[in-house]
Amino acid sequence: MTQVVILGAGMMGSAFSLPLCEAGQKVHLVGTHLDREWIEGIRTDGIHPRLKAKLPELVTPFTHDQLEEALGDETDLIVLGVSSPGVKWAIQQLGPLLKKLHKPIPILMLTKGLLADGQRLHILPDVVRDGLTDYGLENVTVGAVGGPCLATELAVRRDCCVMITFRDQEKIDWVRSLVAAPYYHTLPSTDTVGVEVCAALKNFYALGIPYPRGAAEKQEKPSNNALMFSLESGLFTQALIEMKYLVKFLGGTDATVDGWAGSGDMYGTCQVGRNGRMGKFLGYGLPYKETKAKYMPDDTIEGVDVALMIGSTIEHLVDQQRLDSASLPFTLSIIRAICHDQPMSIPWDQM
Amino acid sequence: MTQVVILGAGMMGSAFSLPLCEAGQKVHLVGTHLDREWIEGIRTDGIHPRLKAKLPELVTPFTHDQLEEALGDETDLIVLGVSSPGVKWAIQQLGPLLKKLHKPIPILMLTKGLLADGQRLHILPDVVRDGLTDYGLENVTVGAVGGPCLATELAVRRDCCVMITFRDQEKIDWVRSLVAAPYYHTLPSTDTVGVEVCAALKNFYALGIPYPRGAAEKQEKPSNNALMFSLESGLFTQALIEMKYLVKFLGGTDATVDGWAGSGDMYGTCQVGRNGRMGKFLGYGLPYKETKAKYMPDDTIEGVDVALMIGSTIEHLVDQQRLDSASLPFTLSIIRAICHDQPMSIPWDQM
Repeated sequence: MTQVVILGAGMMGSAFSLPLCEAGQKVHLVGTHLDREWIEGIRTDGIHPRLKAKLPELVTPFTHDQLEEALGDETDLIVLGVSSPGVKWAIQQLGPLLKKLHKPIPILMLTKGLLADGQRLHILPDVVRDGLTDYGLENVTVGAVGGPCLATELAVRRDCCVMITFRDQEKIDWVRSLVAAPYYHTLPSTDTVGVEVCAALKNFYALGIPYPRGAAEKQEKPSNNALMFSLESGLFTQALIEMKYLVKFLGGTDATVDGWAGSGDMYGTCQVGRNGRMGKFLGYGLPYKETKAKYMPDDTIEGVDVALMIGSTIEHLVDQQRLDSASLPFTLSIIRAICHDQPMSIPWDQM
Repeated sequence: MTQVVILGAGMMGSAFSLPLCEAGQKVHLVGTHLDREWIEGIRTDGIHPRLKAKLPELVTPFTHDQLEEALGDETDLIVLGVSSPGVKWAIQQLGPLLKKLHKPIPILMLTKGLLADGQRLHILPDVVRDGLTDYGLENVTVGAVGGPCLATELAVRRDCCVMITFRDQEKIDWVRSLVAAPYYHTLPSTDTVGVEVCAALKNFYALGIPYPRGAAEKQEKPSNNALMFSLESGLFTQALIEMKYLVKFLGGTDATVDGWAGSGDMYGTCQVGRNGRMGKFLGYGLPYKETKAKYMPDDTIEGVDVALMIGSTIEHLVDQQRLDSASLPFTLSIIRAICHDQPMSIPWDQM
């Protein structure tokens, strides 16, 4: 039996305990300071209050102040399921503890996002690996999971389709064996950059692709009630093409965008969720800031977070002609809408 | 002013008159013997009864027995908008008339489908070109339109995203200029095979991709009401990968599958229509034949027509090891469901 610590008891962190336990692993699920309510709920009746699903018996819940108790030399794998802004906090929590241990422990990231510093974009596994060097931990192995897998679906054992990525094949095989549940379908990938860039950008593009749903409502209802699926379809393709351009620029491969982590996850992300709701508002012609404040004040909109994070860095790379603006018309249109509060427009002449 | 004859006054044939007329062309819209009702409607008030939209003033409607009146030496382009089984009829109608004219007239196909003869698959532009040689017409130029463009949307001037394909670039440029309307967005492609194979296969795969919608309903409702979007997303990617394999096998290019004709049109086709309805029934576990007879007896299901047309030829090519079954697990699963009435299954171990 393998011992796994999941840090972050939000929806995805918690749901990930299912394939692990199904395949026989023992899980210590450690909430962050924001997850207290979920941990209490799980302690009461085994049910995660937001997932509305029962977690396996092999899960032991811990609060954030119990991390040292949960994590030790018997731990074989750490799974990071914190929110994207929580990555820094997670490094600070894990660094001192890992330093005390007698063996290196690999980390698998469920957290999605990109870090931008104005000059460059960084994938989160690299951010974690580099962050841990501050604690004297060199070359910690950090991999990730990407691809269509909604936490609510995973939590009730519905089929998910994910890529498991590490830079070395042995770790991939090992992690795949740890989550070998009948409903958790995994494929291997050594293209960690590609998987991670896709995972972040799918949310970003899922903001723009549903634009026509709002645009259709804004226009006078046509005689035959036609909607605007043709435009939405065209934008989906444009997003995939621009995603491929950015993945390649950052060192990933085409095949990853063509796979579950790319086209698959973007397809699913466009069908549900808050990105699409915001995109519809943008299509309606409402400016981003007003919309956010008025209609979605308390919502985390992942695509917006990505846009705000990467927007100025992308623009800087375009200014420097390291990125070609002609290859990113839709990307730049979304950035203008979110980062500069401009009306969203479709760059027809550049597609 | 260019003179265009559109043969076929169904939804797409008729809607195609909009960008043509908007860009100043004169259109003779000729119904088939099945389109009499539409032609009468257009003659009455200019409104196409099924499109529920007004056609432009520059459209003159003709019934099928008036084709000779509508088509002459003043015709510059023929647009074929008949149904896929109507292609043979169209060749028989056009052949004798074109033979009498004093100049060659290029043909642009809206009709989508593939022809299979047990040994090989043929794109419809080649079927038309080859069919016209029986009338002594050699090397007629035949191109096509592909990509997300719903007839009801086009008919009310909503944005469409299409590829215009001929094997020679000059014809592409000319046809693009003929349909240069602000809502009709065109990109050029010389990959006629790719565009046409994508156009047919998108309907075929749109039968299989919505399988999880039925499968989700069949299972007991989970505690959190989760659906099965993750699986649907994974199947979407699998379909794109297999579409790429078949396009390449038939001589088309990757870029076409990555473009509007491929990923875009498949995205849109999965959102709406009868293919998805049948796919949902299959996901529910119902066999194809019973479902068709019971729930959709009078419906044309384009993906089913494609499956019935290409199924045995694909299986023959697999038997001959000219196609690799390991590269087509989802394709073969759909063929088994439609052509052999077997329960549809997801070939997890081959994806």
